[in-house]
Amino acid sequence: MNKKYTTQMNAAKKGIITNEMLEVARKENINIDELIEKMKRGVIVIPCNKNHASISPEGIGSGLRTKINVNLGISKDSSDFEKEIRKVKKAIEMEAEAIMDLSSFGKTREFRKELVDISSAMIGTVPIYDLVGYYDKDLKDITAKEFLNVVEEHGKNGVDFITIHAGLNKETIKVFKRNKRLNNIVSRGGSLTYLWMQINNKENPYYEYFDELLDICVKYDITLSLGDACRPGSVNDATDASQIKELMVLGELTLRAWEKDVQVIVEGPGHMAIDEIESNMLLEKKLCHGAPFYVLGPIVTDVAPGYDHITSAIGGAIAASKGADFLCYVTPAEHLRLPNEEDMIEGIIAVKIAAHAGDIGKKIKNAKEWDYKMSVARQNLDWETMFSLSIYEEKARRYRKESKPEIEDTCTMCGKMCSMRNMNKIMKGEEVDIL
Amino acid sequence: MNKKYTTQMNAAKKGIITNEMLEVARKENINIDELIEKMKRGVIVIPCNKNHASISPEGIGSGLRTKINVNLGISKDSSDFEKEIRKVKKAIEMEAEAIMDLSSFGKTREFRKELVDISSAMIGTVPIYDLVGYYDKDLKDITAKEFLNVVEEHGKNGVDFITIHAGLNKETIKVFKRNKRLNNIVSRGGSLTYLWMQINNKENPYYEYFDELLDICVKYDITLSLGDACRPGSVNDATDASQIKELMVLGELTLRAWEKDVQVIVEGPGHMAIDEIESNMLLEKKLCHGAPFYVLGPIVTDVAPGYDHITSAIGGAIAASKGADFLCYVTPAEHLRLPNEEDMIEGIIAVKIAAHAGDIGKKIKNAKEWDYKMSVARQNLDWETMFSLSIYEEKARRYRKESKPEIEDTCTMCGKMCSMRNMNKIMKGEEVDIL
Repeated sequence: MNKKYTTQMNAAKKGIITNEMLEVARKENINIDELIEKMKRGVIVIPCNKNHASISPEGIGSGLRTKINVNLGISKDSSDFEKEIRKVKKAIEMEAEAIMDLSSFGKTREFRKELVDISSAMIGTVPIYDLVGYYDKDLKDITAKEFLNVVEEHGKNGVDFITIHAGLNKETIKVFKRNKRLNNIVSRGGSLTYLWMQINNKENPYYEYFDELLDICVKYDITLSLGDACRPGSVNDATDASQIKELMVLGELTLRAWEKDVQVIVEGPGHMAIDEIESNMLLEKKLCHGAPFYVLGPIVTDVAPGYDHITSAIGGAIAASKGADFLCYVTPAEHLRLPNEEDMIEGIIAVKIAAHAGDIGKKIKNAKEWDYKMSVARQNLDWETMFSLSIYEEKARRYRKESKPEIEDTCTMCGKMCSMRNMNKIMKGEEVDIL
Repeated sequence: MNKKYTTQMNAAKKGIITNEMLEVARKENINIDELIEKMKRGVIVIPCNKNHASISPEGIGSGLRTKINVNLGISKDSSDFEKEIRKVKKAIEMEAEAIMDLSSFGKTREFRKELVDISSAMIGTVPIYDLVGYYDKDLKDITAKEFLNVVEEHGKNGVDFITIHAGLNKETIKVFKRNKRLNNIVSRGGSLTYLWMQINNKENPYYEYFDELLDICVKYDITLSLGDACRPGSVNDATDASQIKELMVLGELTLRAWEKDVQVIVEGPGHMAIDEIESNMLLEKKLCHGAPFYVLGPIVTDVAPGYDHITSAIGGAIAASKGADFLCYVTPAEHLRLPNEEDMIEGIIAVKIAAHAGDIGKKIKNAKEWDYKMSVARQNLDWETMFSLSIYEEKARRYRKESKPEIEDTCTMCGKMCSMRNMNKIMKGEEVDIL
């Protein structure tokens, strides 16, 4: 371990070029000086725990390709260790840059350690999920000190970023109570934090001991992902007082973290009408001083359970094009059940589409090149190249295979009326047969 | 038949309130005077052929709920009449407001007549698809007069709207030839029109005989859907000279149609980067004088064959929220094969999500009510109501059924950690068990 710096942000401030920075600059095809300058300001992070040896580091933030996260983990209703590890491998094969281990029951420590061992993707956790299982006692009996101990344990295990609902402090709760909303607190970690605070009549431990928390983050270089306990759970509640009040607290915490050179990501909505997304991207960037924005969704309508990979692909694409840096996948199982492997695959494809569409929109370097190559292949009726460039090759191949056209180079949609085929012929002065 | 007016637009101009107007005003919960005023100006249409007895009329345009269209039809690669009629019935059951019959081979007339007989949804066609099969001769040998005869035949059969690529005239082709694009003309009807013009060295018959075409439209009250032959087939080609030149011609044709009281819809892209959609909505509304905009997609990235119901749901939702009035569905089979029934279902759900998300965004009256009811049910953990409000009930029910939770009112995603359940308990002062 290089002793000359603590966190990646600390290195940037000292002008030290780390291997992780070099790797990110190479992957993104950007200038290393520009990268360091942005890391110094906190608008780019490289979540990379010093104990995560197998990581292939990725940057998240301003001017970089939008990254995606996949949620996994073992729980009471799904404790099959091996099945979950298979999903992990599939997610990495599908190029997810991050995996959040949301395990809440069973051998969570063993699972987490194996995950860190095998994963080149960055690993995130929500320590509060692990709290009750870890101590095997009632949430109300857990002490503030124990909240921090679990964070330390995750840091030791090599977790790259942790979600902490530190913005749900007593002040935020006052605003929440004065401003009625339809769906209260829908964040799982947020509701647990609220529960603990109400039962014990105490301040949020993550907020009260934020400095101690930062010290742990510095020790392992854990990136803080400041969770949004008050993210809207319905389009009705979006952009309301509770959400914005919490975001303001997160902005203040961001500055405190940066003072100690802790890297920060801010988490965001949630359910949100399509016309509110752009303003919400602006709000986060302003109130949180340009910290990278990590959004779950936004889900643009509440009425499509079974199809929330689509409602969130719509919101995620818009969010990414307007400044979101990191998208959490949502699967077709959202609001209905724990996702299985097929749900995970559909969720990953949808969020990859959203991220890429957003990258084209915000003019990320070379984002359009992929599309250009695909459209050249399409123009040439070069099916093999089209397949190899497809966002999910297996389905594209299968679809064509299941429906063989009369004419080899066309497809059964138009057959001999294929506009690509006919325009190519006529532009070359060749005769065209349609009948 | 009421002899006092020709088309719905003609009635509006004369201040006559038709049954169709009353029905639309009732469905949309808007004032009849406002509806008539907008129909007079052409910014709302009610496509409704006088020979389509079974129709349940719908309005398309300014201030109304975004409507959706489903493409179907028999072709060389799929000539099973009965199978296609089953799809029609399913599409109507799923509340598609329009069905375009894109039949290009076989007993197209019989299919069209049966379709009109059974369909409460409005029916659209692209007469040029039917041309070669109808006369059973080479495209090049078909006369301009014969182009019009097929339109007359479709009108007689009760077709409510027809796509005509009248904007691809000699002037547009000059611009197309001077401004190189990656994917030329990807519109099927547009490429056939181009082919005929090039082989015969003649003006586009739909453009040259536009007045005669209008006379046929008046006779049956066919709504003209002015097709975009130059719609971009890749994000690379979007918003280019060919596309905009053609749109300008469509704007001029719109005014000519309105002069004869023919209702008009204008068709639009296509493949398009997410950051260009809003400007394109504005361009159409300006250049085409507020005529309702009917978009195919926009597909926001070229790289996702097998998932173009998602790429187009993203684009469609944005388009609808920024002024598009009518969305054409795109299925997972796009760019790969003719869609089967399952593809059709997935396509309909995706476009319904896009239309509704767009309606929330453009603040269509009561659009959010559906979401509100769903989120109340979600808050109450009232699964039966959630299912009945779901955009596709079958999948939501199946997903939950396949994965039974430990605690009846929660789901396997969070189990006892369900934020809805726990927040409800704590807000009521009840004890919460998590372990």
